[in-house]
Amino acid sequence: MSSSIAFNEDTAGVTDPQGFSAAAGSADVRNKGDDRLDTGIVYSKLPCAAAGVFTKNAVKAAPVLDCERVLQLRGPIHGIVVNSGNANACTGTQGIADSRAMLQLAEASCGSPKDSFFVCSTGRIGDLMPMERINSVVEGAAQNLDTNPESGKAFAQCILTSDTRIKTCTATFEVEGTSVTVGGAAKGAGMIQPDMATMLAFVTTDFGIGSDTLQSLLGNSVNRTFNAITVDGDMSTNDTVLVLANGASGARVDEASIALFKEALFQVCDCLADKIVADGERITKVVEILVEGAASEQDAENISRAIGNSLLVKTSWYGNDPNWGRLMDALGYADAQIDQYAIDISYDDVPALVSGDPIPENKLKWKEAVSKPRFSIRIDMHQGDSSYRLRASDLTEGYVDFNKSE
Amino acid sequence: MSSSIAFNEDTAGVTDPQGFSAAAGSADVRNKGDDRLDTGIVYSKLPCAAAGVFTKNAVKAAPVLDCERVLQLRGPIHGIVVNSGNANACTGTQGIADSRAMLQLAEASCGSPKDSFFVCSTGRIGDLMPMERINSVVEGAAQNLDTNPESGKAFAQCILTSDTRIKTCTATFEVEGTSVTVGGAAKGAGMIQPDMATMLAFVTTDFGIGSDTLQSLLGNSVNRTFNAITVDGDMSTNDTVLVLANGASGARVDEASIALFKEALFQVCDCLADKIVADGERITKVVEILVEGAASEQDAENISRAIGNSLLVKTSWYGNDPNWGRLMDALGYADAQIDQYAIDISYDDVPALVSGDPIPENKLKWKEAVSKPRFSIRIDMHQGDSSYRLRASDLTEGYVDFNKSE
Repeated sequence: MSSSIAFNEDTAGVTDPQGFSAAAGSADVRNKGDDRLDTGIVYSKLPCAAAGVFTKNAVKAAPVLDCERVLQLRGPIHGIVVNSGNANACTGTQGIADSRAMLQLAEASCGSPKDSFFVCSTGRIGDLMPMERINSVVEGAAQNLDTNPESGKAFAQCILTSDTRIKTCTATFEVEGTSVTVGGAAKGAGMIQPDMATMLAFVTTDFGIGSDTLQSLLGNSVNRTFNAITVDGDMSTNDTVLVLANGASGARVDEASIALFKEALFQVCDCLADKIVADGERITKVVEILVEGAASEQDAENISRAIGNSLLVKTSWYGNDPNWGRLMDALGYADAQIDQYAIDISYDDVPALVSGDPIPENKLKWKEAVSKPRFSIRIDMHQGDSSYRLRASDLTEGYVDFNKSE
Repeated sequence: MSSSIAFNEDTAGVTDPQGFSAAAGSADVRNKGDDRLDTGIVYSKLPCAAAGVFTKNAVKAAPVLDCERVLQLRGPIHGIVVNSGNANACTGTQGIADSRAMLQLAEASCGSPKDSFFVCSTGRIGDLMPMERINSVVEGAAQNLDTNPESGKAFAQCILTSDTRIKTCTATFEVEGTSVTVGGAAKGAGMIQPDMATMLAFVTTDFGIGSDTLQSLLGNSVNRTFNAITVDGDMSTNDTVLVLANGASGARVDEASIALFKEALFQVCDCLADKIVADGERITKVVEILVEGAASEQDAENISRAIGNSLLVKTSWYGNDPNWGRLMDALGYADAQIDQYAIDISYDDVPALVSGDPIPENKLKWKEAVSKPRFSIRIDMHQGDSSYRLRASDLTEGYVDFNKSE
């Protein structure tokens, strides 16, 4: 199925589908006197169906609460307003008022009805937002909305915090000769900078899919992509994934085209999730952990997360050290059904452990695999037929240095 | 009650109670050609009641399986044989045979009956044990057993791996004019060195308590001490706490003396647990996290562990940065009943957050607290009356460097 989808990285992203415009400006949210792009809008004049997935953290930032509220109203959506540099989290009742004000100003400035915008913030926790400066940039952005690629890239830029590069991609497919486009932009993994919280991802499409189906497809994609990555295991107060679908392509919506859209949406989410891990703070490696033969999918996920979040496993990757003993230790405390004498482990398909017995003659080959910037670890538990794939980063001295103070 | 207990740190430890002897030697377990003490015995000619608590890791080292087996037989115990440098974990059937052989040789060399010894190993995972060299030192140690303080300290030395110093302490109390002693030795926190696994703790006493009561008191103490510390969140394959009680003091065993013994045992476990955190690999701070007012004890524990194991929280401590936003983020994903607008947080009793509102005017005082090598964080959830205390370390670049390769 994926062969009928054209996929490109490093595109304009959210402005690639028809009918979506964007703009970004600098509000100096961090109060550093710089002109870093930090506030922006994505907009569709056509009303959009929408879907969203939010952090499960019990401490939620004010804009997350607003997004959940707007999504529940199930009304037509016209846009998203975003700032970086301040997460508007743990900011009390003033934070809730600020989030609402930002959303309402974006709606008014774009001439859109009440509760037709989402609002997202990412950055430092616990400081009040500089609303005057943000408001001024929101009004300006609403005047400068454009469908050109530069606007899409400026939007992808304005959402970044500790990220070192923008993260965009675009998938296209044909439905009876009509082109459908899915574009996306995302920002950085985990809690990735001093006081910076949040993974954000925004996907737009000109496919005319309804909200219920869109929500179901998004949930499915997010579980296998954004929820299956880890940098430091810290779940933020602001994590948000939003999709807007405006139907501008005019492509027919039926079982066959929905199947194509599902695959395109998955590819966009998967690519953005991968870019997030690969740009994790001060990381040097992306490791794909494939757990197979687990007794249940929960077991497979528990095992892969225990490994992907173990400090000792992550530091050994950083040191180009296969160290399967640390994998065994981590999977042993993963709260999963385990027979340690049945486990197979391989690095890039080179066996390290077969039925619990090490294969030391392959040691040089494991070291070669682990020394690469990307490698995979396949673990067969031989307890059932469930599997899980997690992408994880290593842990470096740079991470500690980067996060040790404000 | 604690006022009637005399407590001392940096003692001989396991040889302080009457009737316990020890010895240690160098088997060059790591095959590095050095004469590091790495193999030893603790012995009591009088038969002992015994209790043990072991790792909950599903991947267990061979000696842990042997200890569990011996404890279940409920027979009289005469000693413990230990080596460091090799964990005898993930070593297949040969590892099981090696563990059994080591235990049987110690028994035979000391003239003790079958299954009257425990065996413990700590160190690298996945390598077979150098049994010839170990056997030779075990036989020699059995000949050199002594009750002098040097022997107790040599034993405390031989169990170390990445620890920078020995960890011992001794508690004494009087029962109707008869002195009762509880002594202990322990080694290093978590998975604390390249491939080094294990926390081990050994406690001896000349109190004549029975095995069932001893097991119950030990479980109670361990939950509040050894199980309430974290360095890197990695649970090892070899964690073991053992207590031997030989009754040599002749002190009367009744409700009052058991209450004193319970407190003495707790103090010994608490002191050893603290020494383990304080000597965690390349740490610079010990932080006591007190969670109060939680809806349940499980909630209180979940919250304190989420905080104590958060990479972002630990790195901020390292950087002398109070960063209560990261505490809020961590407790938000702790899987506990939470009202973010009801939480109080203080650093060394200086309020940082009251009912979810920050107290920025105290900022300099928080920073002062967090800059000390030891400080406490008190969190009142206002959800109930359950509490939990966890002692955690910070996370440093030194940890990453130390663990990044073999």
